[in-house]
Amino acid sequence: MASSVISRHLLLSCHKSLHLSLSGCRYASKVATKTQVNLDYDGPSMKTEIPGPRSQALTKQLGDIQNVGAINFFCNYEESRGNYVVDVDGNRMLDIYTQISSIPIGYNHPALLKLMSNPNNLSTIVNRPALGIMPPENFPDKITESLLSVAPSGLSRVQTMACGSCSNENAYKAMFIWYRNKERGHSSPSDEDLNSCMINQSPGCPDFSILSFMGGFHGRTLGCLATTHSKAIHKLDVPSFDWPIAPFPRLQYPLEEFSRENAQEEARCLEEAEDLIVKWRKKGKPVAGIVIEPIQAEGGDNHASPDFFRSLRKIAQKHGCAFHVDEVQTGGGCTGKFWAHEHWGIEDPADIVSFSKKLLTGGFYYKLEFQADKPYRIFNTWMGDPSKNLLLAEVLSVIRRENLLVEVNRSGKALMNGLYELQAQFPGIVSRARGQGTFCAIDVCDDETRSNILVKARNKGILLGGCGDRSIRFRPSLVFKEYHVHMFLNIFNDVLAQIK
Amino acid sequence: MASSVISRHLLLSCHKSLHLSLSGCRYASKVATKTQVNLDYDGPSMKTEIPGPRSQALTKQLGDIQNVGAINFFCNYEESRGNYVVDVDGNRMLDIYTQISSIPIGYNHPALLKLMSNPNNLSTIVNRPALGIMPPENFPDKITESLLSVAPSGLSRVQTMACGSCSNENAYKAMFIWYRNKERGHSSPSDEDLNSCMINQSPGCPDFSILSFMGGFHGRTLGCLATTHSKAIHKLDVPSFDWPIAPFPRLQYPLEEFSRENAQEEARCLEEAEDLIVKWRKKGKPVAGIVIEPIQAEGGDNHASPDFFRSLRKIAQKHGCAFHVDEVQTGGGCTGKFWAHEHWGIEDPADIVSFSKKLLTGGFYYKLEFQADKPYRIFNTWMGDPSKNLLLAEVLSVIRRENLLVEVNRSGKALMNGLYELQAQFPGIVSRARGQGTFCAIDVCDDETRSNILVKARNKGILLGGCGDRSIRFRPSLVFKEYHVHMFLNIFNDVLAQIK
Repeated sequence: MASSVISRHLLLSCHKSLHLSLSGCRYASKVATKTQVNLDYDGPSMKTEIPGPRSQALTKQLGDIQNVGAINFFCNYEESRGNYVVDVDGNRMLDIYTQISSIPIGYNHPALLKLMSNPNNLSTIVNRPALGIMPPENFPDKITESLLSVAPSGLSRVQTMACGSCSNENAYKAMFIWYRNKERGHSSPSDEDLNSCMINQSPGCPDFSILSFMGGFHGRTLGCLATTHSKAIHKLDVPSFDWPIAPFPRLQYPLEEFSRENAQEEARCLEEAEDLIVKWRKKGKPVAGIVIEPIQAEGGDNHASPDFFRSLRKIAQKHGCAFHVDEVQTGGGCTGKFWAHEHWGIEDPADIVSFSKKLLTGGFYYKLEFQADKPYRIFNTWMGDPSKNLLLAEVLSVIRRENLLVEVNRSGKALMNGLYELQAQFPGIVSRARGQGTFCAIDVCDDETRSNILVKARNKGILLGGCGDRSIRFRPSLVFKEYHVHMFLNIFNDVLAQIK
Repeated sequence: MASSVISRHLLLSCHKSLHLSLSGCRYASKVATKTQVNLDYDGPSMKTEIPGPRSQALTKQLGDIQNVGAINFFCNYEESRGNYVVDVDGNRMLDIYTQISSIPIGYNHPALLKLMSNPNNLSTIVNRPALGIMPPENFPDKITESLLSVAPSGLSRVQTMACGSCSNENAYKAMFIWYRNKERGHSSPSDEDLNSCMINQSPGCPDFSILSFMGGFHGRTLGCLATTHSKAIHKLDVPSFDWPIAPFPRLQYPLEEFSRENAQEEARCLEEAEDLIVKWRKKGKPVAGIVIEPIQAEGGDNHASPDFFRSLRKIAQKHGCAFHVDEVQTGGGCTGKFWAHEHWGIEDPADIVSFSKKLLTGGFYYKLEFQADKPYRIFNTWMGDPSKNLLLAEVLSVIRRENLLVEVNRSGKALMNGLYELQAQFPGIVSRARGQGTFCAIDVCDDETRSNILVKARNKGILLGGCGDRSIRFRPSLVFKEYHVHMFLNIFNDVLAQIK
């Protein structure tokens, strides 16, 4: 990493140019205020447009092997550090997208490098076990130290999985099994159940459904995809299930200013959700479970109030449906609490909470009654990966040691204030700023302008991602500090000034 | 690993006791013949019954966190080496199950330990990228060096995924997209397609199907599960699709002795498969693809002839269905060729070949025409894991350097010969020995006796797994040598003698 030591002492060209532009609010003084030593770079440093020539050549090379239509650029992960991702052309960007919100504590955190260079951990990396039949000796302790130490309220059990989609697929299965046993009154299937399921027919494969929400995203495998309704391109041409889809509230922001209108909108959605549960039961396709994100992420950062979720939780209980909160994108601290559902303030928020991304391993927490009654029902070869649990335990330790949830709340407040100022200043371009912690978003007037903004910001060293039809989502890692927020706001202000 | 150096010089108690028993064939001389230096232990060494007290305590501890019904015992992976897995009670077993057939070159292979202790690889372990948008610089080279170097005939492209189920789910999606574009005559969906898919309805979510085979296993997520028909417990209570299921040939073994009867059985199955394709098309649920294992593994190690697969491939072509060969368990060299479908001897064996387990990463190879026409159709956050590609590249290098496919063929021949002798000697207990390479199996008279045999073998230091209703499957890693076969046969002979 010799070259990076040199580069962090270089003045960054785009940063200098910023100070020539004076439109909008500036946070120059705060940029210099660092309250703690860290291994971040001093700011972005851009050498080429993105993608640069080396990224273009590698994209061409990879294009002979697979679809490269979504490739942004190629990275130099060795040189990336903290909040900065470095690409193969030597461009260094402040990363507010973090691999689709999946990097918890920045790149190359020293604690993780130290952990993984410990020879005692080599065996865990090299010998991947079949966790469901022959776990390693330290597995119960490692799960206790990592996942159970942040278990959601009321959920004492956890099953790891390899990715977010597998986590939700298996959570759905757990809900179906639970529902069917409840319906039976016992857990002993009949011969007819056993025979019919082998040929995909009921009663063995019952016509159960999962209620999901328009705009929701829960993954891309066939079961998950039947509950995903964010973009057509995810679902097009893939067979699906006839499952009910409720409207998700379309709220007005800032929430405080529209509480009456928003409460009405939420009541409408709750009523329709309940109607759908009744309707699908009558259709012979009873709703075994409800799945929902605390903030619809991929679908456009759509929020709902704690009241909405509390009422929905009650509707689930009233109709005997399981309640599954998908925290794959919201989990891990980015909303200012470790789980976004903690903002609801209830003791019994869910029957199942699934996770992945920033947790580094997929999986789901569940109540004892959702544990499959027999082995091999929720099962696969790997059932997760102990090397990811190892990393997660250290990530959680860093979050505690470095007080990162406090930092997220501080940075999140600065980010929201900045976004409010920007939308006041550029009302024709951006609107509907919203967020919790640093899990924030803003809408752009149209999709084309959004693309334009994302490209311009990237070429100035700010990496962002879109979501929904015309939103920009902010997904920094947990080490994104207040001075990073200010650095971002200064550059973003200039980008918007250029668009204006 | 100091203690292991000591333990390998200890005489193993059960091995000594073997030489007192003289029933059946013995391979004492060959046990001592080692043709090359390796880091294996000298043999099993048992200290307790399995599970021992430490495993029992850990199982109890884990039982407070998740379902432990399938746990066999807890492992000490640090002390495990080569063909031997060591448990937490100090028992050392010759492992012929290898984490459900997922350990390619034994435990703690020195080449893998060396690779992962190289500081240059730390960043790959610590910074998991979103491969679909920001791959690391070495990604095209690493994929070329690893997966593409063993690409099946005719398949030039590959997409990595996190696990076997995700690989098959995405392969199915690729087949659906391909089929629908073929049906449309172009790749531009109508507004009706785009709108209807958002609510899970046709034509956007078409009523396409995948034809699978009774006894097949392709994973446990909802899409995969609709093509899995090996055991009821995998499918019970989970909603499914009305997709066609063809009979898989029930052959008589040894294949050479029953070629006429087996050809008739295969013809019957082929005819029914073709009838189902026609029938499902008439039902309005056309078969977009056929999925099949070269050897049905989980379903009971059911073989079919190269003729059968060649004919099925032709039926797929005739009816315009994609042909997907699932090599999740058969791939990676264990059948004596890198891919089991290479035994069919055809140039164009498949449109799609999926893999996982011994390949360490999931994924699927495909023809260019099966590449999704747009980005984000076959996509997820991680799209695999570069740290697994790194391991795979080294595994493939070891397979070449150590000539492991030659070893597999040699060991496989010895294993089959031994199994033939055993079934001749214990005709009331074992029968139907069958296999390719070391991917072998034998049937036991009934399920109870099979359990009895598996437990007795394990307590003598031989770790085996079952499959199907009453089969035992042999799934050693690729470093399983002829002398390991002889060691196994000696012990297994004694187990069967005790059952008799």
